[in-house]
Amino acid sequence: MATLGDIGLAAAINILSAFIFLVAFAILRLQPFNDRVYFPKWYLKGLRSSPTHSGAFVRKFVNLDFRSYVRFLNWMPAALKMPEPELIDHAGLDSAVYLRIYLIGLKIFVPITFLAWAVLVPVNWTNSTLEISKVTYSDIDKLSISNIPEESQRFWAHLVVAYAFTFWTCFVLQKEYEAIASMRLRFLASEHRRPDQFTVLVRNVPPDPDESVSELVEHFFLVNHPDHYLTHQVVYNANKLAQLVKQKKKVQNWLDYYQLKDSRNQSKKPMMKTGFLGLCGDKVDAIEYHKSEIERLSEEIAAERERVTQDSKSIMPAAFVSFKTRWGAAVCAQTQQSRNPTLWLTDWAPEPRDVYWENLAIPYVSLTVRRLIIGVAFFFLTFFFMIPIAIVQSLASIEGIEKAAPFLKPVIEVKFIKSFIQGFLPGIALKIFLIVLPTILMLMSKFEGFICLSALERRSAARYYLFNFVNVFLGSVIAGSAFQQLNTFIKQSANEIPKTIGVAIPLKATFFITYIMVDGWAGIAAEILMLKPLIIYHLKNFFLVKTEKDREEAMDPGSLGFNTGEPQIQFYFLLGLVYAAVTPALLPFIIVFFGFAYVVFRHQIINVYNQEYESAAAFWPDVHGRVITALVIAQLLLMGLLSTKKAAQSTPFLIALPVLTIWFHRFCKGRYEPAFVRYPLQEAMMKDTLERAREPNLNLKGYLQTAYMHPVFKFEDDDEEEEVNEKLEHESVLVPTKRQSRRNTPLPSKFSGSSSPSLPEAVVQEHPQP
Amino acid sequence: MATLGDIGLAAAINILSAFIFLVAFAILRLQPFNDRVYFPKWYLKGLRSSPTHSGAFVRKFVNLDFRSYVRFLNWMPAALKMPEPELIDHAGLDSAVYLRIYLIGLKIFVPITFLAWAVLVPVNWTNSTLEISKVTYSDIDKLSISNIPEESQRFWAHLVVAYAFTFWTCFVLQKEYEAIASMRLRFLASEHRRPDQFTVLVRNVPPDPDESVSELVEHFFLVNHPDHYLTHQVVYNANKLAQLVKQKKKVQNWLDYYQLKDSRNQSKKPMMKTGFLGLCGDKVDAIEYHKSEIERLSEEIAAERERVTQDSKSIMPAAFVSFKTRWGAAVCAQTQQSRNPTLWLTDWAPEPRDVYWENLAIPYVSLTVRRLIIGVAFFFLTFFFMIPIAIVQSLASIEGIEKAAPFLKPVIEVKFIKSFIQGFLPGIALKIFLIVLPTILMLMSKFEGFICLSALERRSAARYYLFNFVNVFLGSVIAGSAFQQLNTFIKQSANEIPKTIGVAIPLKATFFITYIMVDGWAGIAAEILMLKPLIIYHLKNFFLVKTEKDREEAMDPGSLGFNTGEPQIQFYFLLGLVYAAVTPALLPFIIVFFGFAYVVFRHQIINVYNQEYESAAAFWPDVHGRVITALVIAQLLLMGLLSTKKAAQSTPFLIALPVLTIWFHRFCKGRYEPAFVRYPLQEAMMKDTLERAREPNLNLKGYLQTAYMHPVFKFEDDDEEEEVNEKLEHESVLVPTKRQSRRNTPLPSKFSGSSSPSLPEAVVQEHPQP
Repeated sequence: MATLGDIGLAAAINILSAFIFLVAFAILRLQPFNDRVYFPKWYLKGLRSSPTHSGAFVRKFVNLDFRSYVRFLNWMPAALKMPEPELIDHAGLDSAVYLRIYLIGLKIFVPITFLAWAVLVPVNWTNSTLEISKVTYSDIDKLSISNIPEESQRFWAHLVVAYAFTFWTCFVLQKEYEAIASMRLRFLASEHRRPDQFTVLVRNVPPDPDESVSELVEHFFLVNHPDHYLTHQVVYNANKLAQLVKQKKKVQNWLDYYQLKDSRNQSKKPMMKTGFLGLCGDKVDAIEYHKSEIERLSEEIAAERERVTQDSKSIMPAAFVSFKTRWGAAVCAQTQQSRNPTLWLTDWAPEPRDVYWENLAIPYVSLTVRRLIIGVAFFFLTFFFMIPIAIVQSLASIEGIEKAAPFLKPVIEVKFIKSFIQGFLPGIALKIFLIVLPTILMLMSKFEGFICLSALERRSAARYYLFNFVNVFLGSVIAGSAFQQLNTFIKQSANEIPKTIGVAIPLKATFFITYIMVDGWAGIAAEILMLKPLIIYHLKNFFLVKTEKDREEAMDPGSLGFNTGEPQIQFYFLLGLVYAAVTPALLPFIIVFFGFAYVVFRHQIINVYNQEYESAAAFWPDVHGRVITALVIAQLLLMGLLSTKKAAQSTPFLIALPVLTIWFHRFCKGRYEPAFVRYPLQEAMMKDTLERAREPNLNLKGYLQTAYMHPVFKFEDDDEEEEVNEKLEHESVLVPTKRQSRRNTPLPSKFSGSSSPSLPEAVVQEHPQP
Repeated sequence: MATLGDIGLAAAINILSAFIFLVAFAILRLQPFNDRVYFPKWYLKGLRSSPTHSGAFVRKFVNLDFRSYVRFLNWMPAALKMPEPELIDHAGLDSAVYLRIYLIGLKIFVPITFLAWAVLVPVNWTNSTLEISKVTYSDIDKLSISNIPEESQRFWAHLVVAYAFTFWTCFVLQKEYEAIASMRLRFLASEHRRPDQFTVLVRNVPPDPDESVSELVEHFFLVNHPDHYLTHQVVYNANKLAQLVKQKKKVQNWLDYYQLKDSRNQSKKPMMKTGFLGLCGDKVDAIEYHKSEIERLSEEIAAERERVTQDSKSIMPAAFVSFKTRWGAAVCAQTQQSRNPTLWLTDWAPEPRDVYWENLAIPYVSLTVRRLIIGVAFFFLTFFFMIPIAIVQSLASIEGIEKAAPFLKPVIEVKFIKSFIQGFLPGIALKIFLIVLPTILMLMSKFEGFICLSALERRSAARYYLFNFVNVFLGSVIAGSAFQQLNTFIKQSANEIPKTIGVAIPLKATFFITYIMVDGWAGIAAEILMLKPLIIYHLKNFFLVKTEKDREEAMDPGSLGFNTGEPQIQFYFLLGLVYAAVTPALLPFIIVFFGFAYVVFRHQIINVYNQEYESAAAFWPDVHGRVITALVIAQLLLMGLLSTKKAAQSTPFLIALPVLTIWFHRFCKGRYEPAFVRYPLQEAMMKDTLERAREPNLNLKGYLQTAYMHPVFKFEDDDEEEEVNEKLEHESVLVPTKRQSRRNTPLPSKFSGSSSPSLPEAVVQEHPQP
């Protein structure tokens, strides 16, 4: 049990370390040679060029202007200065809305903190239960609900305040949902033409013996959307091609390097060895070698591309279908096309850069099986992840290693190595697991078959939150591995579980306060310092960077990381809501976290992170849902806690809270969620009409022709790309049917085998001859 | 504990009573004066006319042809003879699919019974646990799992068989779902033109200060579905009008009666009293009086109709919008129209006779609040319904009555009355409650705001099933009121609950066997006798029937009653699946029930029940879901039972079963459910194309104009109806906008205020002038 003094000391240490991080950041960011680490966003936008190109040699690397060091916190107001519309323009709606999550934290917890300190702290403080009971307690506990005697009438205060908290949280959430839904719609409406507004992704195109996928798609949509269908692009399985292109790019880069070297030092021809890592094999002229390599790869690429575009096997049963109007696309995306609801699945096409190409061809049955497998796997991951780690830990012990590899015995027995193994190895297994966990979850989502990066990240975030809740929150509160908890909970009755956790909640307040300071305060300060990218960039710059292009690639700012960042924020919502009525002393720490994190992430979003895709805040329903979950958990735990305090007369009033909260959630879901999954026809029509009036002669087909090409085709040289385009265009204009029975079909053919796609009306009407 | 002999006796009694019912039915149905009770469906179809009109007087009432009595069971093959397609034609798809539920029962349980008797009965029988343990046991129990000693290896047989049962049930369910989905689609496709194929119900039309609902709807759809919108019908609040029309009809009927009386007996003018029930008041000429009454009502009706069609307040913010093509309607029904997802809600219009008019105007927020209220109310109804009944019972005791009404004391103390009150009254409160329960559940569904009768019945059925499960199944197994159970379960751990119930399951086998015989066998036999309608019809015929029209109305066959019938069948699925692996002796009784009920209901559907609406088997996902629920419950209970038998090594294998079953359910949901809620565009397009080819000059507008008129307008005389039609038509063709700002709006108006609805294209393109 920590006293107020202990907490104060921990706070001081963490504030100090945060302060050190900030000072270090303030110094490092002003050095020109770090410029690409701390301001990559501006480089990517083309608004900033390398400072190393101009000026005195020293000033290229070190900032000698000491005045700039004085105002070392001036990035903070700068970060806050940019207004939201500009931020949306600069970094996308996703990032801007992501920042609003921190703001909601402030909006929810600042009034709650005031209310809690005004009402609950006096109510709790003016008791002496803890003093009388003679148990060890900290000063923090005197402010908490633990200090109230059993059966006290004072619990009514907590009850009323819990209602107030719930209503305030729901109120803020509802306002925010409304605001973000309208932001999203405004964003979608104000945007310029985007290919995904006109395009629908069709999956599970059924196999047909007579027609290729491309022909099938064209015929199907000409028949079923005759007035709106414009064009389509089939999806190629270009994974091998992508690999070859990547290889060629690498070789090209080496060639550039050697040519640069050669031009600087004409006397000596650059030589290299062809074997493993350039360490063995024949010594050859590097430039010649790479030139021939490029030639070989170019040939291979051409052959492979030929194969991909010709071979029907490399065409996946999926296609991006574009429509003449947004209205047509909205209709197609929201309706069912065929009798069999697992064929011709239509969905809004994600943004081109958001597409996860590998998953486009998974058939329906496989999808449901994958979902089952991943569901079971995640269950085991969450509750049994300690088992393999415990095995590794036992292997990583001295005895384990000696048993597994007796020949290592003399080495291990050296004292230094022994103490290293004993002290370090057991912990490192868990640490490594926790570091790779987001990657594992991402792989799971990929296996599950989502077709866009944004959906992958959303699903991973949901799983990460669940993992954190079970293993960090419950694990800390009840102190036991998740498996033990599961075992306990299964054996406990439904109303015992909230009691068991509820009772432990106030005792863990000081632990979580420390957690907030370490993970929240210092962690966020470390975030802005960007130590890992900084080191990696300088290492790369020193060892690997050969050309300017390489330097650009070494500067990899990464993206915001919704899948790890959002669950972390949600964890603070959970802590705040759970402790609001129990230990109000924790709330100020939460507020500091939200405020500080808001400023830091605003800075990072403006200056560092690159936007990988734009989902127009499609993640908001998830965020909303998780805050609601935290609220319900908080209510249940308070109920459990109060019922152990023998405040039985007040608990019935608490039962209404989760019911009302869940009802509120369903209300919000019905009211606002459609804005995030559907696209109203009214909007589509309005935008179509406006566009038709403004640009009557727009060549939409040309615009959409190559929007959804596999990225590998885009890396090609221009003339090659054109060739492919031409091929694609050729293919989608002239599709003679290969169907044998085309005119003599007695019943209307499923695809109404047409002869001339340019006359859809005539085709449709001509066909049925009963 | 009943012995085999007891069961045999019970079976004999029930078979005997069923046999008596059948004989009674065989005799009664052959009497011509019962014809309208046992064959009303044929009267309603106009294929049979009253036998009382012709022939000798006696033969009008009694069938004297004794040969027809000999083959008293010949209705059974007759009922089975009608092939399914003809049945669909005769009684609708709903009824035909309803019968298939019984068939599924047979398909699932016949093989399960064979397997259970081949494997489990020998395995159970060849033990002697019960004999050794010296507890009282019945012969039935010797066949059950109770006879196997703890920790026996024989439990593996049950485990394997449970897997076989699950796979077989799922297999049958999947085949059936597939068959019914395709039946539904075929039915929808093969059908003739129906107004609901072209029509969409729009609700929550937002209020507009400038335009009426009708104008608003027209403008909105002209703008947003310019190529497809055809016409619309607003919904009138005609409840008062409906009442007046009903009153007029009644008076008209009396007039007919008196005129008939007068024509028979010319000498005496029929007289009547105007006061209460014709018992007091002035004596007047009946014919004159009723004629004047009719005149008065006609005037009132005219005034009211005028008011309804003129007054904007009696127009609800809802409309039936019809489209030119099925494709257009399918698109509109499946998409979101406006930014605000709670306005302009579109849904497939139910069949005209399926519409529940009263609920069409409930706004979105009110709907969600109603749902919450009903959810809470149903919870209390299920778990606390015993409380008011207990109060009534205590009031209905001798002491209660004497306390509440001391003046009744002398009456009550009479011995006969006293014994009546003591023996009869306490039970009657519960009985009455159970009889009115379906009505209560139906009222709840109505309050919840469903807009069609089929949805009302589906929801009521779901609630009734839940109520039965909690109060009949769990109530019988654990023997306690639902409230006590709830209390027990809340205090028990999650894995204790299946154990508690599982252990009690084998002990209740004989009780449920008796239940099946009484409620199932004898109940179904009583169903075919139709005692209640028979008595009511003859009472009405004797006392009330004045005219031929009255006689037709006295013959009220009712409809199938999905909301009470389906939960009853589902209860047998539950019993069968739960006992399949535990007490296979129960299975033959289930099979007899399903077989017998199938024949009886097939007869009833062919000859008696009238179809109220046609939902094209929209209830199937519910039926499927409830069988799956029963399966999962059975698996959990078996798991609980086995774990108390210390067969711990086998239980982990059982955990996979519910997981797989739920996954199977989700698979089926994704695979087949869309066929029941959406309408594929391919189908719509095919049917449109066919129709356009066959009937190029179809006047669809005329066809759809009055399809969704409030039924009250249809009872009017023809000329009156035409007048209304004309008014409606007039109204929907000429809709000059009243919007003030129509051409000067700087931004595109939300409804793109158009001037001439006949030129939608021009309007849309003309509007935006940026």
